[in-house]
Amino acid sequence: MHHTYSSKLLEEAVEEFATLPGIGRKTALRLVLHLLKQEDRDVEHFGNTILRMKKEIMTCKECHNISDTEVCHICKDPYRDKKTICVVESIRDVMSVENTQQFMGVYHVLGGIISPMDGVGPADLTIESLEEKAKNGQCTEVILALSTTMEGDTTNFYIYRRLKDYPVTVSTLARGVAIGDDLEYADEVTLGRSILNRTSFEETFKHSKHGT
Amino acid sequence: MHHTYSSKLLEEAVEEFATLPGIGRKTALRLVLHLLKQEDRDVEHFGNTILRMKKEIMTCKECHNISDTEVCHICKDPYRDKKTICVVESIRDVMSVENTQQFMGVYHVLGGIISPMDGVGPADLTIESLEEKAKNGQCTEVILALSTTMEGDTTNFYIYRRLKDYPVTVSTLARGVAIGDDLEYADEVTLGRSILNRTSFEETFKHSKHGT
Repeated sequence: MHHTYSSKLLEEAVEEFATLPGIGRKTALRLVLHLLKQEDRDVEHFGNTILRMKKEIMTCKECHNISDTEVCHICKDPYRDKKTICVVESIRDVMSVENTQQFMGVYHVLGGIISPMDGVGPADLTIESLEEKAKNGQCTEVILALSTTMEGDTTNFYIYRRLKDYPVTVSTLARGVAIGDDLEYADEVTLGRSILNRTSFEETFKHSKHGT
Repeated sequence: MHHTYSSKLLEEAVEEFATLPGIGRKTALRLVLHLLKQEDRDVEHFGNTILRMKKEIMTCKECHNISDTEVCHICKDPYRDKKTICVVESIRDVMSVENTQQFMGVYHVLGGIISPMDGVGPADLTIESLEEKAKNGQCTEVILALSTTMEGDTTNFYIYRRLKDYPVTVSTLARGVAIGDDLEYADEVTLGRSILNRTSFEETFKHSKHGT
């Protein structure tokens, strides 16, 4: 629907918001009108936060996670095991794994996943610098924590081939029925694989005694 | 869900976006990560547009619509009939009526609707300045284009009572707009037609006595 804006400034602000993913022009208008009703200093803070964020946020030169400093606080943390590297697709996945509070190693953010359909090849990802870490003996284990999709599998295999001649263990996330899920809702592929890759009960029981 | 942010700047930006209506923390994160991936100058433009909009947008001193100038371009337009005033709740409704391209008069933005539940009384709206226009003989017809809700009806009656002793015709939108609908969701054809077929306020009142 076309809107006749009574203000060029309003129209521009709506157009800007409408460039955001999942935000149509109607939602954009609602957001902008909301901002117009707020206090001057609140809106100033909003605008300035966006400007500062883009200008000042860096990429950690160790793990490629976003950071306010040259090396991120995870890589800097003396209590974290630098020998165990969890490879993830994006900074959002770092957050997801951190939320589990189960992982005390460090990360390596690929910046994407190999996807010929989207024109993303290995050279577009940070695989080179991951191989470097393996070559330098900087790590002993690489955990591939990528999406369990075809693209994720492709990327897993590609990375595995690049790393297999170095003295590192390459592992992937356990695949199986999600905890708390009813069996009847698990898809057949997942269920099938989790039967094939069944683990010893004592092994599972041992973990859960130490875990939550 | 709690997120462990690797960057204070990122967290602040997410918090800002999450203050917007209908935007949760998860969506806010998606929007911020999207902005992070854009070109520096595009994000700068985004931030600066918000800052400029809030600083520079004015309220038209004639009709209370938002405007880039003291008097908005509708009120300034020599081809528009200043004697016919369409009273709407919000600037969004001005846009809706403008979109129909059926109305060549001017507007009066109330800035809300009488709603005791929300603590909005007549004094919170721009009814005083509307009455002034009727008193000064500035207009000959006032079209009440409010939502066809209970609050809209209450406001209609209130304004009608304030204006009825002045030499103005008070009309309301033809009931082409489905009763109970907000104006902004009305389709353009229905809305356009209901402006063309507007009825005298007394006429509508007579009908509603017989039951709607």
